[in-house]
Amino acid sequence: MKNAIGIISMQYRRPFGVEHFDQFARWKAAGYDFVELLVPDPGEMDLPLLRRALDDAGLFAVITARVNRERSLTADDGAVRQKGYDYLLYCLDVAKTLGVAIIGGPLYGSPLVFAGLAPHPVSEDLRQRRIDWCVSSLTSLGDEAAKAGLRLAIEPLNRYETDFVNTVRQGVELVAMVDRPSVGLTLDTFHMNMEEDDLCEAIGFAGRHLMHFQANENHRGYLGTGHVHWTSVVRALGAAGYDGTITLEPFRRRDDRIGVPFAQWRQPLHDEQAEYTASCTMIRALIDLNGSRK
Amino acid sequence: MKNAIGIISMQYRRPFGVEHFDQFARWKAAGYDFVELLVPDPGEMDLPLLRRALDDAGLFAVITARVNRERSLTADDGAVRQKGYDYLLYCLDVAKTLGVAIIGGPLYGSPLVFAGLAPHPVSEDLRQRRIDWCVSSLTSLGDEAAKAGLRLAIEPLNRYETDFVNTVRQGVELVAMVDRPSVGLTLDTFHMNMEEDDLCEAIGFAGRHLMHFQANENHRGYLGTGHVHWTSVVRALGAAGYDGTITLEPFRRRDDRIGVPFAQWRQPLHDEQAEYTASCTMIRALIDLNGSRK
Repeated sequence: MKNAIGIISMQYRRPFGVEHFDQFARWKAAGYDFVELLVPDPGEMDLPLLRRALDDAGLFAVITARVNRERSLTADDGAVRQKGYDYLLYCLDVAKTLGVAIIGGPLYGSPLVFAGLAPHPVSEDLRQRRIDWCVSSLTSLGDEAAKAGLRLAIEPLNRYETDFVNTVRQGVELVAMVDRPSVGLTLDTFHMNMEEDDLCEAIGFAGRHLMHFQANENHRGYLGTGHVHWTSVVRALGAAGYDGTITLEPFRRRDDRIGVPFAQWRQPLHDEQAEYTASCTMIRALIDLNGSRK
Repeated sequence: MKNAIGIISMQYRRPFGVEHFDQFARWKAAGYDFVELLVPDPGEMDLPLLRRALDDAGLFAVITARVNRERSLTADDGAVRQKGYDYLLYCLDVAKTLGVAIIGGPLYGSPLVFAGLAPHPVSEDLRQRRIDWCVSSLTSLGDEAAKAGLRLAIEPLNRYETDFVNTVRQGVELVAMVDRPSVGLTLDTFHMNMEEDDLCEAIGFAGRHLMHFQANENHRGYLGTGHVHWTSVVRALGAAGYDGTITLEPFRRRDDRIGVPFAQWRQPLHDEQAEYTASCTMIRALIDLNGSRK
């Protein structure tokens, strides 16, 4: 198994701009192979410059689509659904410009807590229509992706972040309905820790649909500071034959003062180079050790 | 260790009304010692009738305060804070009427996702004032509780449900500032699974402040259907000398169709008596087995 290990750019700064490109060399020095980037909105970033900066640092990239209430494949409003579709087409263009192979994220839309929405009942009729809208759009987008040699890796999120796809089982069901080799899954252990019966069973269930993986602690701290059993997770990935990309997203800060909002994005409080290095080293060592068991 | 095992009423119906009192006998038959009830709002429930129904079934009760945006000890608006304080005084009255010893819940207020609020930055000044407001109110309420022989058991919630107290460490810090023997903590493994480095370490850290416990799977399904390591949790409770109440809150339904909102309250889809019984039997057996190790 030759998994590439990456880190998400917004771990460091959000928005991540040209002024933060010197971080690329530091991540490379910490052992990372790639960076996962939020898809910049039009005009937000000089894409050729970004590509050159990544090349210069010896890193490649994976990109994550940012859906919201104004662009969502599963919105009640047809105009919002169209914007969701157009946005994902735009993401494919960004991928081509950056030379990126994988577009991840909750591509289906329907955000909750970060969109300021409380969980609410969904009628059976609406639920079915949402599925139809989503499958239809993702099928067409999958065909567009295939033409460009790109892959769409749909990510289930926990119950507070979306009401559409929360589990690996739901993700596999959606991907099976879309039924395009260019459309598969991103799995993130942070969300899985909340929603799955068993992380390793779920990885096995995803099997060949797994296109991208995000290795995160239960509390989103650095790997090894929480209770996810990484040896078991790495073995499950190996057993599933997964040799793809693995991104780390350690957003949690060691700042647990009362009343500090944990779900609010916060930038690092100190130079985290030592933690970047240790987390990358740890997961890579476990992958190597799992390989040595063959 | 002689822990009483209970189940939360809204597992079955929400709102839980007089018409659902026949459920008490079924829970007693499934092995439960008590029911945890959401504090009924004024006029919502005939409290003496409720008390009699519980007595008739051979159950006691724990109650949970329901804070919201209109009644919160940590709200920016002083009138809302006053309503939060008055509401908790009312909860003490309800406890007296019902003959209940423990009032649990996120007594500090500041709800997020279920109040339709996205996580947002909190200024350092406001953060400090919230702490002052909260400590001052809880100290006074703790004195009121002590006069009536009642205990306030403050529950940390996960990052999506509040931005005020998410971890056991924060909870212990808050309780230490309040510094009243009548004010302690409720710990819930569902929230802990998301926020703690280690569930057992956190239980040990809470130590003598632990007044009430909620044993929930990572996904809120029935105990034994998720990945919480119950043997370790029970041992940690035993090591902390905890002989108090343990409530089960299995809200998750085995209905994982795409687009079904998991965080939205849903009533059982079938008669769950077998699952009520198995979960209660399992946790009680582990407690007994842990006791047999002495």
